[in-house]
Amino acid sequence: MVTPKDIELANRLADAAGEAIRPLFRGDWQVEHKDDHTAVTVADRAAEEAMRRIVEAERPTEGIIGEEFGSLRDGASRQWVFDPIDGTQSFVAGRPIFGTLIALLQDGWPVLGVIDQPILGERWVGAIGEGTTFNGRPIRTRACGALAGASVATTSPHAFADEEVDAYLRVVAKAYPKRPYPVYGGDCYNYALLASGHLDLVMESGLKLHDYAALVPVVEGAGGMMADWQGHPLDAGSDGTVIALGDPARLEDVLEAMSGA
Amino acid sequence: MVTPKDIELANRLADAAGEAIRPLFRGDWQVEHKDDHTAVTVADRAAEEAMRRIVEAERPTEGIIGEEFGSLRDGASRQWVFDPIDGTQSFVAGRPIFGTLIALLQDGWPVLGVIDQPILGERWVGAIGEGTTFNGRPIRTRACGALAGASVATTSPHAFADEEVDAYLRVVAKAYPKRPYPVYGGDCYNYALLASGHLDLVMESGLKLHDYAALVPVVEGAGGMMADWQGHPLDAGSDGTVIALGDPARLEDVLEAMSGA
Repeated sequence: MVTPKDIELANRLADAAGEAIRPLFRGDWQVEHKDDHTAVTVADRAAEEAMRRIVEAERPTEGIIGEEFGSLRDGASRQWVFDPIDGTQSFVAGRPIFGTLIALLQDGWPVLGVIDQPILGERWVGAIGEGTTFNGRPIRTRACGALAGASVATTSPHAFADEEVDAYLRVVAKAYPKRPYPVYGGDCYNYALLASGHLDLVMESGLKLHDYAALVPVVEGAGGMMADWQGHPLDAGSDGTVIALGDPARLEDVLEAMSGA
Repeated sequence: MVTPKDIELANRLADAAGEAIRPLFRGDWQVEHKDDHTAVTVADRAAEEAMRRIVEAERPTEGIIGEEFGSLRDGASRQWVFDPIDGTQSFVAGRPIFGTLIALLQDGWPVLGVIDQPILGERWVGAIGEGTTFNGRPIRTRACGALAGASVATTSPHAFADEEVDAYLRVVAKAYPKRPYPVYGGDCYNYALLASGHLDLVMESGLKLHDYAALVPVVEGAGGMMADWQGHPLDAGSDGTVIALGDPARLEDVLEAMSGA
């Protein structure tokens, strides 16, 4: 399903995005705001344009879904999904923990994913049946024997709807019977660190397809799992709630904690 | 008050801490929890020990206040204050945006500060009368014409007491009439990025002397200001509430927004 040529192309796409982004990091440009009030910069646009040009040249029959420039060839069975800068606010603040996200969907299912941090030169690549690598070396998530003591991360408390905050805080209370509390900020970088075995759980809500599609092959190829807040696998039609677990054995514990049972 | 030899020593301290920390980043060690339930690792201890050894050898009459190993020579008019890893949770999660904090207090006032990120090789040094440098080059904060539109950062929503959350959220509402919302996570790195002109406001609470002492000379040397939540300058006796502004002209706006006026 995923060929070596697909992985090679995904790496080329990440290289091109990184070349567009690096000279603009901590640069002197204006932050604009889109209709949904999220931030966008010249770097987001330049990186997505660079990736779209390559797919247009190399895969003229495959679809494109991009955060900044929308969809192309909607009916294609294979679709490339781009978030040129996931964590634009982090990028704007000068933090080198945003990421370029690249996914390949096959019939709506993410089968190949890249999380690329172009400033630090860090790249996670995951593909169904191929496992996940960090800068070319295979990685695994870590075991997590119990929800109590698990390390949790989420990007922003403002991302949750009111009723979601309660479910999230119930999980936090189980994971951290005492202090310290979850790590905040991080965007896609949290999922990359979970794949590398440094975090146990990421919980988020309000994600778009371009935010979560690339994460699934990276996390699952490393031995973890991703699901929505009902515990269902993520595909192109998911509702934007996301649980990522380094140790899939903890899914029931998380769902139970969320429900307040 | 601050001599070139003090600045040279502070750089040596940061070098020594970084040498202790780098081999342990993303390593395989146990996270322990202190009596206050905050996290500590072998890296925190090794870095502080390395710094204390140098002060003992070079400045045997000056005091030491360290997060991990306590105080020495409490009555000294000059005291070195160490937080070997500010953002231990970030360090534990594998994020390279924690920092080593080094401050020199003169009669309780922070006159020299270092924020060092040893993985990225980024160092901010600020000294009263000397300005602030980033990797040796002078930096300035940026102007901020109005609170509406200011970029805000804070490490964790859990750090605020209940009544403090309300004051914080009133400021957020003024800064972000629409989305996006503040950047979370970051610890000392937020203050460093504010000094470099990438953020406008950092608001926190519950900080200890070792968390905030080094930040003051870095932020103020770059043209910004720091204060507690009443607007008073920070010294060794401050209450742990902190406002950092890139543009000091916005202080009244922040205090007014906090009060709900």
